[in-house]
Amino acid sequence: MEPLRFTPAGIPVVNFRLAHSSSQIEAGIGRLVQCEIAAIAVGQLAEQISKRRPEQECMVRGFIAARSRNSSQIVLHVNEIRF
Amino acid sequence: MEPLRFTPAGIPVVNFRLAHSSSQIEAGIGRLVQCEIAAIAVGQLAEQISKRRPEQECMVRGFIAARSRNSSQIVLHVNEIRF
Repeated sequence: MEPLRFTPAGIPVVNFRLAHSSSQIEAGIGRLVQCEIAAIAVGQLAEQISKRRPEQECMVRGFIAARSRNSSQIVLHVNEIRF
Repeated sequence: MEPLRFTPAGIPVVNFRLAHSSSQIEAGIGRLVQCEIAAIAVGQLAEQISKRRPEQECMVRGFIAARSRNSSQIVLHVNEIRF
């Protein structure tokens, strides 16, 4: 988790990474899935997240978007988080 | 979309890219989201997808996973597709 930062307009933003692990079914066969994804939260949620310690289990909901206009990197924008 | 390929066990696999565009809400503010994500389908679904022409609108459901054990790249594994 990176430190809380503020946009020029004063909106709090936090960048962090989420690690995920689960069992999934693909073409009828079970498999273990692991991945890490870059994440971002904005506003009050950013403040809440920045106060948490890392490595804490959570469930998130949000949407994915390109990191920037010409980037092929994906960032998960978190709109909801439950610890 | 890459050509249909087969695993050593004879399972069909297709790799392709999905482009997404939508409106989302983040911290109470509407924004346009665009991204492209690497995708993969396995089995019968791979055969179906490989017969489609590119640029066709679709809705997918599946899960994300790292491209390989030590990769930070994300791939969307498609379990369901609707054209």
